[in-house]
Amino acid sequence: MRLKNVKGASDVIEASKYVIENPSDYKGKFKDLFNNDNPIHVEIGMGKGQFIIGMAKAYPNVNFIGIEMYDSVIVRAVQKQDEEELPNLKLIKFDATNINDIFEHEIDVLYLNFSDPWPKKRHTHRRLTSDRFLKRYDSIFKSEKVIVQKTDNRKLFEFSLKSFTDYGYRIEDLSLNLHEDEYFNVETEYEMRFSNMGYPIYMVKVTK
Amino acid sequence: MRLKNVKGASDVIEASKYVIENPSDYKGKFKDLFNNDNPIHVEIGMGKGQFIIGMAKAYPNVNFIGIEMYDSVIVRAVQKQDEEELPNLKLIKFDATNINDIFEHEIDVLYLNFSDPWPKKRHTHRRLTSDRFLKRYDSIFKSEKVIVQKTDNRKLFEFSLKSFTDYGYRIEDLSLNLHEDEYFNVETEYEMRFSNMGYPIYMVKVTK
Repeated sequence: MRLKNVKGASDVIEASKYVIENPSDYKGKFKDLFNNDNPIHVEIGMGKGQFIIGMAKAYPNVNFIGIEMYDSVIVRAVQKQDEEELPNLKLIKFDATNINDIFEHEIDVLYLNFSDPWPKKRHTHRRLTSDRFLKRYDSIFKSEKVIVQKTDNRKLFEFSLKSFTDYGYRIEDLSLNLHEDEYFNVETEYEMRFSNMGYPIYMVKVTK
Repeated sequence: MRLKNVKGASDVIEASKYVIENPSDYKGKFKDLFNNDNPIHVEIGMGKGQFIIGMAKAYPNVNFIGIEMYDSVIVRAVQKQDEEELPNLKLIKFDATNINDIFEHEIDVLYLNFSDPWPKKRHTHRRLTSDRFLKRYDSIFKSEKVIVQKTDNRKLFEFSLKSFTDYGYRIEDLSLNLHEDEYFNVETEYEMRFSNMGYPIYMVKVTK
């Protein structure tokens, strides 16, 4: 995603009651934050938030947490949520590399949508589906591990299928052209654009 | 593949010295037929033989066996091989459902190219990558099991990836658009046609 500086972004983010400022304070007790026992679904790299806001509306009995590291991007999600005021959605400005600092045995589903493909071989470990990241995710899940990935990047998807299954994940669901299939699907901003251009969107749901 | 009756097909097949008439006679001892210890690669559903003949030419130190059940199709492969006379290629007219009647611990690689997708759910077990077939293949392999699949059928490919990995196969190589990648690739007749029409060709190599 192209980043541009958004004036006043950090003020908007700080002022929002939907942004968790010190997420590590809630490690292992995010359910207290939502004040219920509903499952918790997390999206890493939520961008401007279209997916996670759409999901939070569609599934009011699920708690959603959107993570994004860039001020200029997360601010758009914050602005939307400040309007929507969905009680089951929180946002975190954070680098997912350190995800183990904020979650511990409390997540039910992890979404990875249109993640950075890091095409160079020497950057393999930066891909959110590399074994290094899969290892990090292990301890954030409550019990069964569920990861849902969507991407238009063929090479990232091929890599991910191999990485997931090598790591012991089972393919529960798979589409090599999501928009041709009959899934309930909340689109990301990026996905809308690329699908409209005729590119296939790949999706896989894996469990362990 | 559309089948049409080819006049005199059965005579051509019977007359060829490259067609193994009673393949079960060689069960467990196909290497005697080739008179060497080279690895044996098998293609189920070779159609008119373009792939297996191309492979046999490209890899003279590998023995190839092409299997096809329809007279009107295999006859084209037989005619080509009667001209080419490749010493490392044999052909068998056979229904692969009974593959355990002809092979036992002697195959190194199995190719499944553009197999019938059997799209109806009740026909799942007829797909060459269903668990029923994967179980049959178990005892045909010498030691390491290697299966290479190519198809343009998205649903069959999605099914196969799930089926292979559920059965314990590891994805060694994967392409969701083979003709865009830099693989050494011998095309089948069908593949040439569909790839030229712009359809992506899917490929996976799995090992167990």
